[in-house]
Amino acid sequence: MTHDPRFMACALSLSQRGRGRTAPNPNVGCVIVAANHVVGRGWTQPGGRPHAEAMALAEARGAARGATAYVTLEPCAHVSPRGPACADLLAEAGIARLVVALRDPDPRTDGLGLARLRDAGIEIVTDVGAAEAREAMGGFLTRRRLGRPFVTLKLATSLDGRIARPDGESRWITGPESRAHAHLERARHEAILVGRGTFAADQPRLDVRLAGLEDRAPRRILLTRGEAAPGWERIADPTEIAGLDGVDHLLVEGGAETASSFLRAGLVDRLLLYRAPILIGSGKAALGDIGLGRLADAHGRWRLAESRQLGSDRLEVYRAG
Amino acid sequence: MTHDPRFMACALSLSQRGRGRTAPNPNVGCVIVAANHVVGRGWTQPGGRPHAEAMALAEARGAARGATAYVTLEPCAHVSPRGPACADLLAEAGIARLVVALRDPDPRTDGLGLARLRDAGIEIVTDVGAAEAREAMGGFLTRRRLGRPFVTLKLATSLDGRIARPDGESRWITGPESRAHAHLERARHEAILVGRGTFAADQPRLDVRLAGLEDRAPRRILLTRGEAAPGWERIADPTEIAGLDGVDHLLVEGGAETASSFLRAGLVDRLLLYRAPILIGSGKAALGDIGLGRLADAHGRWRLAESRQLGSDRLEVYRAG
Repeated sequence: MTHDPRFMACALSLSQRGRGRTAPNPNVGCVIVAANHVVGRGWTQPGGRPHAEAMALAEARGAARGATAYVTLEPCAHVSPRGPACADLLAEAGIARLVVALRDPDPRTDGLGLARLRDAGIEIVTDVGAAEAREAMGGFLTRRRLGRPFVTLKLATSLDGRIARPDGESRWITGPESRAHAHLERARHEAILVGRGTFAADQPRLDVRLAGLEDRAPRRILLTRGEAAPGWERIADPTEIAGLDGVDHLLVEGGAETASSFLRAGLVDRLLLYRAPILIGSGKAALGDIGLGRLADAHGRWRLAESRQLGSDRLEVYRAG
Repeated sequence: MTHDPRFMACALSLSQRGRGRTAPNPNVGCVIVAANHVVGRGWTQPGGRPHAEAMALAEARGAARGATAYVTLEPCAHVSPRGPACADLLAEAGIARLVVALRDPDPRTDGLGLARLRDAGIEIVTDVGAAEAREAMGGFLTRRRLGRPFVTLKLATSLDGRIARPDGESRWITGPESRAHAHLERARHEAILVGRGTFAADQPRLDVRLAGLEDRAPRRILLTRGEAAPGWERIADPTEIAGLDGVDHLLVEGGAETASSFLRAGLVDRLLLYRAPILIGSGKAALGDIGLGRLADAHGRWRLAESRQLGSDRLEVYRAG
């Protein structure tokens, strides 16, 4: 066997540690394996450097010689002021085999990293865990492909799709387990966005209230045609997310009008649906006009990617397309 | 081992064959077991007679002597013009042991059936599968306990809780598998109820469009202060379901106002929630005013009893309380 896909699964898992903190760099994961033992592990560090490969090689030291490196993305071929090219580092360390999930779409690398390593006599295996890697580094890839962040829309509703009572009361629909999970999601995004109504009504802090993750507070974006508040950035229209530098993962948290405007613009890639086992009846609906023409057009747009129990609530994650 | 609970599970399963067709009699199931083999099976027949025990004994014939009878409900002690008491039939057949799930709350039996069999020297085991039996014969028990049918509310919604587009378009939100399942549910109810709006808009047939079950068409009830249409019965208020003779299972199918009026009256025992993986946005909400005071009052009222995939849709069944 030239490679073991379980080691790529490790590398993909490590890649998630950097998610939401590496933009504009990809959140890469890397595992170096010698004689079927992991001798080095790395993931892109906050701010984008060191790269995953550099970190894993630093851990592996001499054990990297003759070993196999599993990397979720093609090692970079370009030297930057912030560090050497990972392709060079891997070649110098004497890696015998490289297993990668995806080619790097960055034109400075795109195939050049692999070519350089192949030229150095290193055996190359590609497309291992490619589908999972597209999920794991979705923010970076969406930014490269569509020129905008990967957008997750969060909705917390009753069984009948309400997000508040008629008087606006919305605390709490979901339970503490759902809310803790939502905070963990925040920590995996560079920025969180709410609309003017939610800002005015809730003055949300949008911080990460989880022990050990308090420093993960994402940037706060307000969707408004008016002024931004201190500590907040603003955009006037969902399409302006393209201009949010350093944001590859955007979490849209509310309210209904903001959620609808992102859906109307076709700018939601992932839907986080927290559902409490309650009925509310009259009240505020989760969504307003999302620009749906006929009912037939609503079908086939979302597929269930994950489903789990969170206390009494149910979390469903849908992916677009 | 004096008894095997798996045979009670068989009897409970058989009891479901009569559900929705035996009122005012309970839908009982019975299995007669000799030397660990099933020698007789019975369930209450449409209209309420023959009873499950009579049917099972007729199949078992002589093999019933010395056998064990598993019955989901205490055998009746009262002779009626329509047939003998099952307690007498079981004693005469020479049953050695009787295993029952629940006592019959009917005052003509309530303990008398068991007493008569005990007096005849038959060993009695009670409370086997009692919780499951309460579910299986919920219609009969609700009628006995609360003087009204067991009410199931069906909702078919999008992920955001809509049952139609703003122009009323509602065909189709759910897929063919969900709709077939809903027809199967119809077959298990003595009557189906819709409100005036749904009647006027859809002229629903409310029949059972499933091969082999076409004869199961339940009675059709209209919730209206006006006149009933030909072929329809009417009630003016949800509380009038108490007066629907021969209806122990009522399926409330729509629309939003009717559903809300039953919830407001506290008259929903079971919620059938068919959810399609679509978003609709603006449109008709599944529920209107259900009389909820504060959000805290919404919690703890519903528990998830069952959940399954139906094609692309998800069915969730909630039970009240």
